[in-house]
Amino acid sequence: MNRSPIDFRPIGVIHTGHVHPDETPIQPVYAPGCLGKVELFPEYGEGLSDLDGFSHIYLVYHFHQANAVHLKVKPFLDDVERGVFATRAPCRPNAIGLSIVELLFRKDNVLHVSGADMLDGTPLLDIKPYTARFDCIPGTRNGWQDHLDEQTVRDRAGNNKALKGAS
Amino acid sequence: MNRSPIDFRPIGVIHTGHVHPDETPIQPVYAPGCLGKVELFPEYGEGLSDLDGFSHIYLVYHFHQANAVHLKVKPFLDDVERGVFATRAPCRPNAIGLSIVELLFRKDNVLHVSGADMLDGTPLLDIKPYTARFDCIPGTRNGWQDHLDEQTVRDRAGNNKALKGAS
Repeated sequence: MNRSPIDFRPIGVIHTGHVHPDETPIQPVYAPGCLGKVELFPEYGEGLSDLDGFSHIYLVYHFHQANAVHLKVKPFLDDVERGVFATRAPCRPNAIGLSIVELLFRKDNVLHVSGADMLDGTPLLDIKPYTARFDCIPGTRNGWQDHLDEQTVRDRAGNNKALKGAS
Repeated sequence: MNRSPIDFRPIGVIHTGHVHPDETPIQPVYAPGCLGKVELFPEYGEGLSDLDGFSHIYLVYHFHQANAVHLKVKPFLDDVERGVFATRAPCRPNAIGLSIVELLFRKDNVLHVSGADMLDGTPLLDIKPYTARFDCIPGTRNGWQDHLDEQTVRDRAGNNKALKGAS
């Protein structure tokens, strides 16, 4: 089995208003007013062609302030410990973050987005288009999240100061 | 700006029936019969708790057979060159793949999945739960993909030998 490390390099940086991890929204859907700028390093700008036809995009990034790895974690939305792969928590073996944000517009090598739920200065690794045909799957079972009612989720998300400021 | 390389390590390996890149389905939705096994290295098994409540999961992996980087690429589904970030092509600056697969069942540290559209032996980087609340976004605009009719997409996907065998 191949266990060799794999080297990735940032292709840009994500600018947001979130400076402290505990004031950062937990998911884009709870960060509706949080604007961000995704700045690609100029040498990658050509790869952004045609992206502005998509209303939503995936950002793949490095949780650069994540520290220790925990295989069991209490998610922000729950009081019970869960396996880390059943959560979006940053303390994963590979600190890779994934967010779906709304693409408002592009100006040269900068994407202006809404729903930015990551820390300011986050290193960007990749961008992919969100495509309804592939990515919007109706009727999924959603594990422990199915047992949370929407009000509880919103209340907990609302405890976040940055989100409060934004909504 | 931080341009330092970021080291990730495989947390497991994805076993599929796809040995050649040109015989591999282009997306899970066109690989409905393609079963796969996601084998986590044993030391990460504890992190899989609670995952089997989710019907669908994201696999984040390394396109380990991707070679040169191209910022413009002709997608499998189209005849026009597009910016690589507006496609899912492997020839991206960071060769990170993302697929949503159906989780059939878990046995110890192995996940049995359907819709496996990656090459056999693919190094696994991360697993995240697919959650309707966060991830299924209705009414998106889907760029150049909106101009493809479903029949064209299916015909092109059908040119793939592995998919023909599977469907």
